[in-house]
Amino acid sequence: MSSKSKGMDAERDLIHKFWARSWCAVRVAGSGASKYPSPDIIVGNRIRKIAIECKSINKNKKYLDKEDVEQLKEFCDIFGAEPWFAIKFPKMNWLFLSLEDIEKTENGYVVDYKVAERRGLLIDELIK
Amino acid sequence: MSSKSKGMDAERDLIHKFWARSWCAVRVAGSGASKYPSPDIIVGNRIRKIAIECKSINKNKKYLDKEDVEQLKEFCDIFGAEPWFAIKFPKMNWLFLSLEDIEKTENGYVVDYKVAERRGLLIDELIK
Repeated sequence: MSSKSKGMDAERDLIHKFWARSWCAVRVAGSGASKYPSPDIIVGNRIRKIAIECKSINKNKKYLDKEDVEQLKEFCDIFGAEPWFAIKFPKMNWLFLSLEDIEKTENGYVVDYKVAERRGLLIDELIK
Repeated sequence: MSSKSKGMDAERDLIHKFWARSWCAVRVAGSGASKYPSPDIIVGNRIRKIAIECKSINKNKKYLDKEDVEQLKEFCDIFGAEPWFAIKFPKMNWLFLSLEDIEKTENGYVVDYKVAERRGLLIDELIK
C-alpha cells in the first residue's frame, strides 16, 4: 500500500471517529497539492471548528515541514478554527497536539513520541 | 470532458473566487460518495461559515435530488454553517440560492433559470 493511500486510510479512520461522536468531519480534497493553505481534515459542531493536519507515524519521532505548520496556522487565522495535529503511532490511539506541543527545530518542527504521549489529547479529551 | 471533471472544474473556479476575496475555501473529498452528509465546498472567515452544493447547469432548469438537499441541511445543522446552492448557467456569473429559493416538486426540488436570475445572489452580495 502506498504511503498516500495509507495516509488517506488514516484520515478516513479519523473521520469516522468524529462522526461517531456527532461531530461533522470532512476530508479536504487535494490538501497537500493545493496552492492555498488547507488542512487535511476539518471537523466541527455548532460551537467549535477545528482544522487538523494528520500524521501517521512509524518511527519514534516525526519531522514536520515548516510549510505544513505555517499553512495550518494561516488557514486557521482566516477561517476561524483551532489548529491541531493528529498523530497516530503504531498500536496507539490518535493523539492531538496543539501548535505549542510541537518542538521547533532549525528547519521546521518535530513531534516526539514521548512528548506526544505526555501532552497529547485523546479524541474525547479534545472535543469535550 | 466527463461531467465529473466538469463539475470539479466548476468547483475549483468557485474556490479561486472565494480566496480572491480573502475567504478560505476548500473542496470536500468524495462529497458525493461519502456515507456522511457533506457539501461540495466549505467556505468561511472568522465570522461566517458557509456550506455549498455546486451545480453547473446547461439547461433552463435543474432538478435536485431530495437527498442532496436534505444532506446539505443536515450537515449545516450539525456543523453550524449556512446552507447555499451555487448555480452556474452558461455565460452567467455564479448565483447563490438559499434553501428558500429552490422550489419543491413531488420528488425533490427544482432550480429555475428565471427564479435564479431574480432571487440569486452574486458572490459579492453573498459575502458582504
